[in-house]
Amino acid sequence: MAHASYSPSRIRGLSVRDIRFPTSLELDGSDAIHPDPDYSCAYVILYTDTTFKGHGIAFTIGRGNELVVAAVKSLSHVVVGKPLRKIFDDFAGIWRALTSESQMRWVGPEKGVIHLAVAAITNALWDLWARIEHKPLWKLLADMEPERLVSTIDFRYIGDVLKKEEAIQMLKDMQPGKEVREERMLSRGYPAYTTAAGWLGYSEEKIEQLLKGFMSQGWRHFKIKVGQDLEDDKRRCKIVRKIIGDERTLMVDANQKWDVDQAIEWMKELAPYKPLWIEEPTSPDDVLGHTTIAKALRPLGIGVATGEMCHNRVIFKQLLQAGAIDYCQIDACRMGGVNEVLSVYLMAKKFNVPVCPHAGGVGLCEMVQHLQMWDYVSVSGTTKDRMIEYVGILSEHFKNPRRINRCHYIAPKVPGYSVEMWEKSLLDYEYPYGPKWKKLFLDGKYRDPQTSPPPWVERRLSGDINMR
Amino acid sequence: MAHASYSPSRIRGLSVRDIRFPTSLELDGSDAIHPDPDYSCAYVILYTDTTFKGHGIAFTIGRGNELVVAAVKSLSHVVVGKPLRKIFDDFAGIWRALTSESQMRWVGPEKGVIHLAVAAITNALWDLWARIEHKPLWKLLADMEPERLVSTIDFRYIGDVLKKEEAIQMLKDMQPGKEVREERMLSRGYPAYTTAAGWLGYSEEKIEQLLKGFMSQGWRHFKIKVGQDLEDDKRRCKIVRKIIGDERTLMVDANQKWDVDQAIEWMKELAPYKPLWIEEPTSPDDVLGHTTIAKALRPLGIGVATGEMCHNRVIFKQLLQAGAIDYCQIDACRMGGVNEVLSVYLMAKKFNVPVCPHAGGVGLCEMVQHLQMWDYVSVSGTTKDRMIEYVGILSEHFKNPRRINRCHYIAPKVPGYSVEMWEKSLLDYEYPYGPKWKKLFLDGKYRDPQTSPPPWVERRLSGDINMR
Repeated sequence: MAHASYSPSRIRGLSVRDIRFPTSLELDGSDAIHPDPDYSCAYVILYTDTTFKGHGIAFTIGRGNELVVAAVKSLSHVVVGKPLRKIFDDFAGIWRALTSESQMRWVGPEKGVIHLAVAAITNALWDLWARIEHKPLWKLLADMEPERLVSTIDFRYIGDVLKKEEAIQMLKDMQPGKEVREERMLSRGYPAYTTAAGWLGYSEEKIEQLLKGFMSQGWRHFKIKVGQDLEDDKRRCKIVRKIIGDERTLMVDANQKWDVDQAIEWMKELAPYKPLWIEEPTSPDDVLGHTTIAKALRPLGIGVATGEMCHNRVIFKQLLQAGAIDYCQIDACRMGGVNEVLSVYLMAKKFNVPVCPHAGGVGLCEMVQHLQMWDYVSVSGTTKDRMIEYVGILSEHFKNPRRINRCHYIAPKVPGYSVEMWEKSLLDYEYPYGPKWKKLFLDGKYRDPQTSPPPWVERRLSGDINMR
Repeated sequence: MAHASYSPSRIRGLSVRDIRFPTSLELDGSDAIHPDPDYSCAYVILYTDTTFKGHGIAFTIGRGNELVVAAVKSLSHVVVGKPLRKIFDDFAGIWRALTSESQMRWVGPEKGVIHLAVAAITNALWDLWARIEHKPLWKLLADMEPERLVSTIDFRYIGDVLKKEEAIQMLKDMQPGKEVREERMLSRGYPAYTTAAGWLGYSEEKIEQLLKGFMSQGWRHFKIKVGQDLEDDKRRCKIVRKIIGDERTLMVDANQKWDVDQAIEWMKELAPYKPLWIEEPTSPDDVLGHTTIAKALRPLGIGVATGEMCHNRVIFKQLLQAGAIDYCQIDACRMGGVNEVLSVYLMAKKFNVPVCPHAGGVGLCEMVQHLQMWDYVSVSGTTKDRMIEYVGILSEHFKNPRRINRCHYIAPKVPGYSVEMWEKSLLDYEYPYGPKWKKLFLDGKYRDPQTSPPPWVERRLSGDINMR
């Protein structure tokens, strides 16, 4: 087997950069809770004792990215210096060492800033592994023996729902037909839906123009943002439904704007426009709230979807146990990277809930395509009721961006996890010192409320006083 | 009314320091998940345009504290420069501005590093307010009109369980008898239990010696750590029960060590020693898991307690809704400070679940005494089934440390929230440059795995490579 020997022998170093794109200037990505996102990421490179490197990211929306960068540095001691064999032969153990670092665990645990940092590091390790094996990640996963794949998962806190042996058996049961399914991914790809027409800040004209453009390309599934203003939502849903017709699909996304009761009331008003799902109706932490909402909306034909801010496998376990979701929206770097996401795919399979990954942002489309294709080949064996979100911005910064053909994601063939960015993009958009940012500051086009005067004038150090 | 005018008019500045105590060298605070804690805090001072200052902290256990410090800096722009009237007349609004900063929310939301930072800032605001009003915090809270107190709470995501009007009514219903209850807090204080005898790293001789010392002082409630090794737990429970007798109370604490099934099995084995509660049997995120455990253990007379790592009101809401806990263990700075904790006390009252706050650490005893005394005076009106955790270390660093008399917390009389530390302690223990830390490094008695060579030799900056 190819993975019996590794050409590099250990992790020699780790670098992390604060990369931000000024998307707030164009209102790309605006929603009811996040009006001004600057799509950003903590960008990790793992160095080895050969020329092999691993690239990994965690996506954020601007301020706060500096905290994820700092958390990556604070966790780097767990992997730097480690032999690769020790890492990949006990990946669940290394993942546990990252998530349960004996002191840092306190500032999580397994959630928020430090879990995003775990995701960036873990994803870089998977990218490295796939490059060493000379396979795209989805193929690395699909080729693994079930025992080997399951050995990368930490089952702590999910053993009441899924045990290791059961997970292995689930994968073994799906071995027949794998070649045919792989072939289908390579020839046809994985179905996608688009969110690019539906941001809140967009005008109706822009939405109509975008929708018609997408429809002429063959797109059939469209998601729009709701939750700011009920009358405006009704008007926009009506317009979208009129343009796309009854034979195409509309989904709506509230980005956690509502309380539980309010979500039910609001969605009853939008029911006439037949949305397939309401996404993120309320707090991502509210398992019981989602259950209440799902029970109220199912009779109206509306499903509940959530996941992009569900912070770990324990939350997904409960959402699945409680029948709280009809669509499971894993995120590639909100949870602690590939290892943890795999466990959620397996639990979703057990509860027969389709996974429709969250994408867009920076690098999310690039990553989730691998996960979803593995799901098709090795876990669910179907694309029924499943699609990958697609947002078309920022792909120019990636060396091997996701490719869409006839509204399907094309199976990646380049080794790795597809998140490597061009060095020029990294240099230009490093925050706050990259030339693109310096120019925005100097031209007075961007103001960072955290740092006034502009950030290169002063650096605040521990113990300094922020005095105005 | 005293709070009609404020002598200082606005927040002029904010400082934050990384304060750590090398408690890992003594094994104080060790448990099944956290073997080597260095009790630490992000220490915030808010400066005004007069000599009034507000002090606030968030407790951590060492590494990772630097992230909370960084997060405080990243959030400081929300409060620095703000008029105090705007803050205290719309405290829920300022709290929302902190927790929902439009970009930073992504790296939470309302959990982990940024929520700890919100706690430190919010607690400093409350300390400032209480000092301006010249009252200890518990008395400030107890004296507030119900409408005013409830106006400080953000009800987002809890409206399905508790509405503003209901909260106001609950407080109004408890107005009769407040003076008598205040008097009782001043004369008798609030009952406490001790954890100081039960850390995992302590030898049996040390435990026995400590227990006997405490019992001679009149202590009747003792908590010990479990979860590392079943046979050892049985042996230690047996010894403790033998020493304290059947008339005193034993609680056990697993610090999230177990899966759901395992928690039930393990506790069945410890049932003969009649623990009052099992604390943190599993992941703090697992509402349904706690429900399963509680249902299995209640017939054995064992209650379930949790909360010190429950990250916000949405988790507590569900724990209460689901009947998952018999004791609600709020933490003063895991949630976003006083405002959010108040909402949990009110929900606990509604579900008739007693609150027994988590304490110990750095400053937790100092803070929770105020909250719990307010609960007695204004919310629950009883101390039945309620006690405050007590751990006796590190109090020497506080200007006005909690005082214990006959195993009761004595009601604080000094204005504020009691977390102000001596300047010498702050100077000595600032990490990593304080003289106490420098000496430990130079003497080779302490090694920080994040920074080798010692931290003052190099500072890692963004983009640098951590190379070994």
